[in-house]
Amino acid sequence: MPEQYRYNPAPYPVSGGWNTDEPAGHRQFHTFATDRPFSLEGGQSLRNVTIAYETWGTLNADASNAILVCHAWTGDSHVSGPAAKGHASPGWWEGVVGPGHAIDTNKYFVVCSNVLGGCQGSTGPASPHPDDGKPYALRFPVVTIRDMVRAQAHLADALGISNWRAVVGGSMGGMQALEWAITFPTRVRALVAIATCAEASPQQIAWGAIGRRALLMDPAYNNGDYYDAANDGGPWTGLSVARMIAQVTFRTDVKFNEKFGRRLADRNFNSDGIDLFSRFEVEGYLDHHGDRLTRRFDANSYLYIGKAMDLHDVGRGRGGISEALGRIKAPTLTVSIDSDILYPAYQQEKIQSHISNRDQRNRHAVIESVEGHDGFLIEVTAISREISQFLSETN
Amino acid sequence: MPEQYRYNPAPYPVSGGWNTDEPAGHRQFHTFATDRPFSLEGGQSLRNVTIAYETWGTLNADASNAILVCHAWTGDSHVSGPAAKGHASPGWWEGVVGPGHAIDTNKYFVVCSNVLGGCQGSTGPASPHPDDGKPYALRFPVVTIRDMVRAQAHLADALGISNWRAVVGGSMGGMQALEWAITFPTRVRALVAIATCAEASPQQIAWGAIGRRALLMDPAYNNGDYYDAANDGGPWTGLSVARMIAQVTFRTDVKFNEKFGRRLADRNFNSDGIDLFSRFEVEGYLDHHGDRLTRRFDANSYLYIGKAMDLHDVGRGRGGISEALGRIKAPTLTVSIDSDILYPAYQQEKIQSHISNRDQRNRHAVIESVEGHDGFLIEVTAISREISQFLSETN
Repeated sequence: MPEQYRYNPAPYPVSGGWNTDEPAGHRQFHTFATDRPFSLEGGQSLRNVTIAYETWGTLNADASNAILVCHAWTGDSHVSGPAAKGHASPGWWEGVVGPGHAIDTNKYFVVCSNVLGGCQGSTGPASPHPDDGKPYALRFPVVTIRDMVRAQAHLADALGISNWRAVVGGSMGGMQALEWAITFPTRVRALVAIATCAEASPQQIAWGAIGRRALLMDPAYNNGDYYDAANDGGPWTGLSVARMIAQVTFRTDVKFNEKFGRRLADRNFNSDGIDLFSRFEVEGYLDHHGDRLTRRFDANSYLYIGKAMDLHDVGRGRGGISEALGRIKAPTLTVSIDSDILYPAYQQEKIQSHISNRDQRNRHAVIESVEGHDGFLIEVTAISREISQFLSETN
Repeated sequence: MPEQYRYNPAPYPVSGGWNTDEPAGHRQFHTFATDRPFSLEGGQSLRNVTIAYETWGTLNADASNAILVCHAWTGDSHVSGPAAKGHASPGWWEGVVGPGHAIDTNKYFVVCSNVLGGCQGSTGPASPHPDDGKPYALRFPVVTIRDMVRAQAHLADALGISNWRAVVGGSMGGMQALEWAITFPTRVRALVAIATCAEASPQQIAWGAIGRRALLMDPAYNNGDYYDAANDGGPWTGLSVARMIAQVTFRTDVKFNEKFGRRLADRNFNSDGIDLFSRFEVEGYLDHHGDRLTRRFDANSYLYIGKAMDLHDVGRGRGGISEALGRIKAPTLTVSIDSDILYPAYQQEKIQSHISNRDQRNRHAVIESVEGHDGFLIEVTAISREISQFLSETN
């Protein structure tokens, strides 16, 4: 029996502005003016763009206390708060953002939007094409990190935020934070870039590209056209394998040794697991993570956002990395996780080393952790300490 | 049009012993006695086992100058010598094994056999099942590194070699070398284990398992039954994706930066490559390596040998790693490549630290290289220096 189509975003209301009556942690939707298209870096454009976002705290009178938090690859706008309709899980940075936390929602007005190209309320490949109301699928244009950031700038304008107290992000969120500070140097008063890079490395591109090849190989991908309920379901096996690849790069050998060792998950053949298909525990873990993603994420969004990361290069069209990072006016905190194999520490050191604004508050911090790249989500205490300190220094 | 079935091993003659007339670098074939089955560690057995092997140099009168070289995952018996019929490429350790080289074929009688489960002449999943003459495919039993080694011991017996001057291997070849010294402590007079481990780590298992999942997802895999020429060809896309995963783990971030940077391979869309399917150079490299493997390797062999590596654990049934390594009598050289992300240096240090024979010639060497795991094949000068020195010390 074909598996049911799993990713099923709740239909969302489309509103034209900021609805102040929404409780914190509920998604709101900003729709761009429909009389002109939103031009993309690749030369194409999108009409009727909607950006889903959430806010926490209260914007002060001079709109000077707004902090933008940017999410990573498969993240969404739900940084903080319990699971609810539209958010299958509690906030992805629960311990970092909230009342009394490092990014204190009693003090700051915190905004997080689902990226352009995403699948949690913002316009993406699963959204209806304005021409025919059917999902864009592969008709969706390639978007870049810069496009995501310019879409966020539209939202900031609508919210009346001319500049951010801080823009903060890890991994792909850090790519956005960097692009914010480079594209709009006067709109960012402090920059926090965690476990990220100025340009995707060939190894990062390789991992992303292999995941995409796996996804595309799934016959259920059907050239991107799998949204029809009559279809045999989406490319869940392919998306799952792509996620497994990413999952290993997000963690570390040390952590896997600690967590799984060589324990078997299946003992259905013989006690030694000497069978082609019996699994070690680490395989059960990968299957679980692969499967879980297919329940909340659109496969085409996975492809498009992955490609956006591969294309990330702050130096493109700006005379190179050094010139681009030289534009940053904001004091900048870069943070590395010392065990990160996907975004190794040298990448954040490189960012810091090319910032030429001579601000005394620029700082590079290294977090010692066995968690690897996922440390930016897991090491809440250490991340909070660095962000707290930096926010107080840049007050 | 369906792609042609690519892996096509030349039919091989089956002979019952050692044919001394064969020139060096030509495959020979040892077939086990057919009157009793070859029992496997997993409890099953194989009949009519053939092991393909090559030899270089001359066995001396007391058969004391024989060195066994063990190959890695997708390697074969062709350690040294030019490309020829049955060997698409020159020897995989050309600079290490040969006249005047570290493993000097003027001095030593060198043997290398294709592993049990392989696809270059030894019995494997592509071999005919004795019952019906059709390929085993998934009827092939799971084999372990210990089974490979016990099959090599049959060959050694047939060649009249009661003990090896040295057993040498890198990666999966190192797993075999370790198993030789543990299973047959008195048959190994010197052990060289390069870029290998005493037990596969969960991270290694994860990479292997994800590759297998990709391979199995290819519809052309057809539950392992793709040997029929009428079939649409084998699971070449799946095998290729599996190989790509491995290929990244074999190399390093530093090397990829050096070799590819962010250069584009395809410029068919726009000059920035802002297109979902245009490739960076590193992707072209992965496609090339993926494709190349499909031209010389059987997909089922890839699965079975990969599983054998996951199952590698010298401690299984022997009271643990330390007890097992404690059985080794041979002086042991362990070699690490410092940039190896797949078989990190701590694994070889661990092997060395558990060898308890108190032989003064035991030694651990670290090769500084940016080549990563593939350094065991590429860093010919450094590898040769270590092996040469160790062979002279253990003379």
